[in-house]
Amino acid sequence: MTPNSSSRRLGLWLVGARGSVATCVAYGLGALREGLIEPTGLGTEAPPLDALDLVPLDNLVLGGHDVTRRALTRTAGELARHGVLRGELLEAGSGLAGEYEARIRPGVLDDADVGFADLDPQAADRSGAPPRERVERLRADWDEFQAETGVDRVVVCNLASTEAWREPRPAWNELGAFERALDAGEAPPASTLYAYAALGSGRPFVNFTPSLGATPAALRALAEREGVPHCGNDGKTGETLLKTVLAPMFAARALRVLSWQGYNMLGNRDGEVLADPLHRRAKLESKDEALRSILDDPDLHTGVGIDYVPSLQDWKTAWDFVHFEGFLGVRMSLQLTWSGSDSALAAPLVLDLARLAELAAARGEAGAMEHTACYFKSPLGGGTHAFHEQVERLLEYARQRS
Amino acid sequence: MTPNSSSRRLGLWLVGARGSVATCVAYGLGALREGLIEPTGLGTEAPPLDALDLVPLDNLVLGGHDVTRRALTRTAGELARHGVLRGELLEAGSGLAGEYEARIRPGVLDDADVGFADLDPQAADRSGAPPRERVERLRADWDEFQAETGVDRVVVCNLASTEAWREPRPAWNELGAFERALDAGEAPPASTLYAYAALGSGRPFVNFTPSLGATPAALRALAEREGVPHCGNDGKTGETLLKTVLAPMFAARALRVLSWQGYNMLGNRDGEVLADPLHRRAKLESKDEALRSILDDPDLHTGVGIDYVPSLQDWKTAWDFVHFEGFLGVRMSLQLTWSGSDSALAAPLVLDLARLAELAAARGEAGAMEHTACYFKSPLGGGTHAFHEQVERLLEYARQRS
Amino acid sequence: MTPNSSSRRLGLWLVGARGSVATCVAYGLGALREGLIEPTGLGTEAPPLDALDLVPLDNLVLGGHDVTRRALTRTAGELARHGVLRGELLEAGSGLAGEYEARIRPGVLDDADVGFADLDPQAADRSGAPPRERVERLRADWDEFQAETGVDRVVVCNLASTEAWREPRPAWNELGAFERALDAGEAPPASTLYAYAALGSGRPFVNFTPSLGATPAALRALAEREGVPHCGNDGKTGETLLKTVLAPMFAARALRVLSWQGYNMLGNRDGEVLADPLHRRAKLESKDEALRSILDDPDLHTGVGIDYVPSLQDWKTAWDFVHFEGFLGVRMSLQLTWSGSDSALAAPLVLDLARLAELAAARGEAGAMEHTACYFKSPLGGGTHAFHEQVERLLEYARQRS
Amino acid sequence: MTPNSSSRRLGLWLVGARGSVATCVAYGLGALREGLIEPTGLGTEAPPLDALDLVPLDNLVLGGHDVTRRALTRTAGELARHGVLRGELLEAGSGLAGEYEARIRPGVLDDADVGFADLDPQAADRSGAPPRERVERLRADWDEFQAETGVDRVVVCNLASTEAWREPRPAWNELGAFERALDAGEAPPASTLYAYAALGSGRPFVNFTPSLGATPAALRALAEREGVPHCGNDGKTGETLLKTVLAPMFAARALRVLSWQGYNMLGNRDGEVLADPLHRRAKLESKDEALRSILDDPDLHTGVGIDYVPSLQDWKTAWDFVHFEGFLGVRMSLQLTWSGSDSALAAPLVLDLARLAELAAARGEAGAMEHTACYFKSPLGGGTHAFHEQVERLLEYARQRS
Repeated sequence: MTPNSSSRRLGLWLVGARGSVATCVAYGLGALREGLIEPTGLGTEAPPLDALDLVPLDNLVLGGHDVTRRALTRTAGELARHGVLRGELLEAGSGLAGEYEARIRPGVLDDADVGFADLDPQAADRSGAPPRERVERLRADWDEFQAETGVDRVVVCNLASTEAWREPRPAWNELGAFERALDAGEAPPASTLYAYAALGSGRPFVNFTPSLGATPAALRALAEREGVPHCGNDGKTGETLLKTVLAPMFAARALRVLSWQGYNMLGNRDGEVLADPLHRRAKLESKDEALRSILDDPDLHTGVGIDYVPSLQDWKTAWDFVHFEGFLGVRMSLQLTWSGSDSALAAPLVLDLARLAELAAARGEAGAMEHTACYFKSPLGGGTHAFHEQVERLLEYARQRS
Repeated sequence: MTPNSSSRRLGLWLVGARGSVATCVAYGLGALREGLIEPTGLGTEAPPLDALDLVPLDNLVLGGHDVTRRALTRTAGELARHGVLRGELLEAGSGLAGEYEARIRPGVLDDADVGFADLDPQAADRSGAPPRERVERLRADWDEFQAETGVDRVVVCNLASTEAWREPRPAWNELGAFERALDAGEAPPASTLYAYAALGSGRPFVNFTPSLGATPAALRALAEREGVPHCGNDGKTGETLLKTVLAPMFAARALRVLSWQGYNMLGNRDGEVLADPLHRRAKLESKDEALRSILDDPDLHTGVGIDYVPSLQDWKTAWDFVHFEGFLGVRMSLQLTWSGSDSALAAPLVLDLARLAELAAARGEAGAMEHTACYFKSPLGGGTHAFHEQVERLLEYARQRS
Repeated sequence: MTPNSSSRRLGLWLVGARGSVATCVAYGLGALREGLIEPTGLGTEAPPLDALDLVPLDNLVLGGHDVTRRALTRTAGELARHGVLRGELLEAGSGLAGEYEARIRPGVLDDADVGFADLDPQAADRSGAPPRERVERLRADWDEFQAETGVDRVVVCNLASTEAWREPRPAWNELGAFERALDAGEAPPASTLYAYAALGSGRPFVNFTPSLGATPAALRALAEREGVPHCGNDGKTGETLLKTVLAPMFAARALRVLSWQGYNMLGNRDGEVLADPLHRRAKLESKDEALRSILDDPDLHTGVGIDYVPSLQDWKTAWDFVHFEGFLGVRMSLQLTWSGSDSALAAPLVLDLARLAELAAARGEAGAMEHTACYFKSPLGGGTHAFHEQVERLLEYARQRS
Repeated sequence: MTPNSSSRRLGLWLVGARGSVATCVAYGLGALREGLIEPTGLGTEAPPLDALDLVPLDNLVLGGHDVTRRALTRTAGELARHGVLRGELLEAGSGLAGEYEARIRPGVLDDADVGFADLDPQAADRSGAPPRERVERLRADWDEFQAETGVDRVVVCNLASTEAWREPRPAWNELGAFERALDAGEAPPASTLYAYAALGSGRPFVNFTPSLGATPAALRALAEREGVPHCGNDGKTGETLLKTVLAPMFAARALRVLSWQGYNMLGNRDGEVLADPLHRRAKLESKDEALRSILDDPDLHTGVGIDYVPSLQDWKTAWDFVHFEGFLGVRMSLQLTWSGSDSALAAPLVLDLARLAELAAARGEAGAMEHTACYFKSPLGGGTHAFHEQVERLLEYARQRS
């Protein structure tokens, strides 16, 4: 029997713990507890999801892995200067943030990413260890976190920078082969190693990035075998969200989209990493998939440009141009300009997903959490990309469990 | 038993028969029959609505009322110069358009609109007759149309320019009082007179404009009494369509919309009429209703500006600015620029609605066609304004009847 | 002989002393002295204007009039929350701001504005006095300011909210008649009373608002008679600046502008005041004049909409749509979206103008400062509205005096 | 002595004679002669340039080179379908266009461009000949054109697609070395070969593209030696025009531009060619130069993206995002969306430049035509990129010669 949520305690483990999103999660949680902010952006705090038996925000404890030693207060100070964290929230959240930072452990970096970060020597050391040993050390960190804090369950959430795209390997398709490769010292991408460590030790895994994570069949089989829920990939926070909201409108009105061209400017670490072609490839594939799936027209022309514009700092500006044809062959257009703080958009979704993953685990649900599709650019459970249909699926899940 | 659609013939009677939308309906129908255009924009020609037993486009016959004598070829020529009707469609549709124009009869103008149009003397004459006589002459036109063309049923669709807003009268609330007022020579708005004439003679009525039409309780009671289906008000073709697609996204993500400001520029006759404050009032009420209903926040600030910019001709450019608050109280924005031909957007919806009204009548369905809510800014059947939920309702209707 | 600038000291007297622009002037001056900010936006600190013998920023002393008693720290706190004043500038400027606030005296409100502001009882008292007495009290404040601070000269700069538009009166056309009307107790608009008080006591007057100020012929004659320089009206900070930069391009390329439609959203006190039609009239006349003058086409369609959108706070978002015709009669468009802090844009121009007015006075130049046209929407000295030609005039002035 | 313009006749020879710009030149000239269009976009037909002793438009005769055999009527038909050429202009211009097409000769293709065009076998043949022979055949075509039509002078204007960027060679720096390389069979880029053939035979050369043309020192020396005027490079028609109009405003206001990011979408042949990285390189260098020159800030971040979006056809949509800092370090933004027909923007500039080149030649002016800087993205004569200063230079030239 599932114990009542109010008595359950959740350890939320953030990979990429010193980054902007994680920092917003920590300071936001602090500000919510102090009553300084409304739970804006948190779907799980609003009807109808708030009727679910979710673990209360007060019962969350944070920990995490990171490959750098950059102080959390430095990230927070930058977010304040960039207009994301108000000064008073910086102060209010400092207690919770301090406790959280004390629980951050050196993480594991993807081989291809060496050189893209100011690496912590301890993290470098861990990243160089044989893959099996890396897995063991991650699990040991989680065990220790759980022992120290007494949380009932740990949910691991990947918020680290996008990894470089890699050619898929046959061993990723089958769990036995995957584990033999590990034994042989062949390391999968770091995000997949985290997923393996988490799922294999019964811990739900949320992949909020376009990195590989638990996408390979081997990892999905592991989740099923261990009876653990997981979800991903790539949080749907801005431009792609708009695409999956608007494209179904064109379909419903039988209007023919000729071209859908998007241009993204990012100023944060994410933008810097995506300036590299291999890292960008992972991201772009995830961004382009939705439109093709919803509009289903072989002649559709799409394109997504990404540029790093440092002066934007934590802000992202996306411009979309939709060229479409209506009755009589008349050509018309829709343009969108989205200007938002990526971190402030992502952080509440991380909290929502952690709570939904905890609930799924508490109820014994295993495998891809199909009801979370509306949160992701490439939902692991598949299905439609149309946002409102995805939301309907989540509401249906909530109705059945409320 | 409903006869099979392929043997049914529909007379589509357009009020505002010489206007841009009606002209696009006529030339578009001609072009479709010649195979010169795809049925883009026509939801009833695409899955899943095409599975309904709808009257084929080939079985439509057009007629209409207008208060001016402006030649249809003049309107069509302008649409061609404005980039809406391609030259080859002008030629291809001239046959059908000529037959249609021969069936246009002098219409009835709203008292408040005298001076806003270059009035046909016959229409002026009719408009000055006692209301009961006006009704009889409209019905006589329809009877004659039906007799001449042999169509099985006539659907009346109001496409005339927006009427001036009027203070509601008590007599509009109850059918008996409404009819006594008519007997006493008190005329309701012209759109309502058309609705009365149509519904009272068993003809479905589609109000594609923000004018009063069949909105009053008296008219709704008439439709129920006579067992006739009807729908309206105000076709959802552009900016409001976008609002009802996007606002539910903000709600689903628990983002708080602070301000939603819209600015519309129109260059056609519609824009000219809306430059008048009383005519604009009717339009703006219809445009503002949806956001308040979906976002349900008493502090929400909304505004809609409309300006007449003649150089835009048949094109409309709308700019929307959405200011919203996310997690941590961070303020972000979304801007939209919509640039489309109002007539080309409206015309296929008119064809869709005429076919759906014919089907409803053929199946004996009476009263407000609630399943057509997705077509209107102020759906007569009420219900949510959220576009994707409205579409779901239409699909549900289609599933039940396919 | 003009004493060297470094030994001159300037008293800058701000009317609307507790408003956002004045607050930015005060805190900005403080931050500049502390070396916390660069002189960005200050043309007089950059080449070639920095070669002029201008009074150093360190030699400026601030004072002012206001009709409310709202604390400057409250305005500053709001500007900080709205992202205009960074937290550290708030602290750094508090010393200078405190001294400035101690020198703010109760001002004179325009009769038509009673009810638009939370009036200070002392200001109400002054505003009710006979016009001649009001003038005397203003001058007494300036004399006292000069005596206390020892500044060599006082420049009065009007930053108060836009006054309501008023029907021009014959007495405004001639200085004798103007003074007789004053004697008879007939008060001109408050901005004109300030101009009269300043110019008549030999003090330069800068009208940074669209209010009447020193526009009437009577006031211009006064400036000439007293040998005092003055300038205005209405600082060119945003949308109009863009218009006067871009319109000459269309002219130079022989492209024909068909329509230039602007839509402005403001969230500050300025926006609130402009929500009133009479106040808006003054503003719109000033905004529309430039385009007609530059493009010189009787068929040109222009429009300017202004809406108050409180959530924007100190920020202004303007959207412009330019519809133009090129070779072969092809119609094309340019759209602009300008998003800026009105106060941060205005404040450095106020400092520039005060220094330029001081220099003109020190050099014995009298009447309208024609070389400052590039700073204003409706330059008092007339001439072209084309921005780059106006700038050229200022540079020419600077070359002659450097 | 210069003969009066009205008795002079000009042969305008277009390289890229079957392309969109050349087609607009031909049909536009026809429409102007028939009085069907106004000379919108033609600066030389408006004051003050119309006071120059320019050759009348009626005295122009067209001829040209192209490497394909695509019929001019096909290009014109496409331009009509794309909304650039109105139907009536198509008919009106057919006479002039027919005569022009009869005078089009097979051109010379750049070696690197083989494969990018549907090559005319005769052009392929010519392109494969030794460089000296290619030059002779070009000159023979011009001699023949002149003999047949009796024009007094031929101006050669390059409108061909952008060539691939090439590593500069030492031989390009000195005329002797350049000619020895030609003798040795080493071909420069095709655009430079055209420039050599034209200038060396005393014919003015206008390079309207970013290709190399007469840029190398060797070619400039040739123009000086032969006493022939020439100008280029790359017509300033859209986004770059806006940049060079707006950037000086930021400079004049001492506002600091942090980032200026541009994103261009093109649907025509130009866009297709620019999808290739080497072709794009030539274009981007030309587009980026202006901002750096005007804003002169080493920290300025700029970027220009170009994407080929076929559905746009002859239309170009450019989006610019300007991020800037004002007083108090406040960050603000300006966004621009430019939507225009590239061909309709370019064609009148071609006519202007041809007439100005003819005048310069008639007056015996030699070398780079510095007064035409406002027409080019990379003016050969150097100088400021600020548009209004460039225009002032042209007006000064006109004043001296009127």
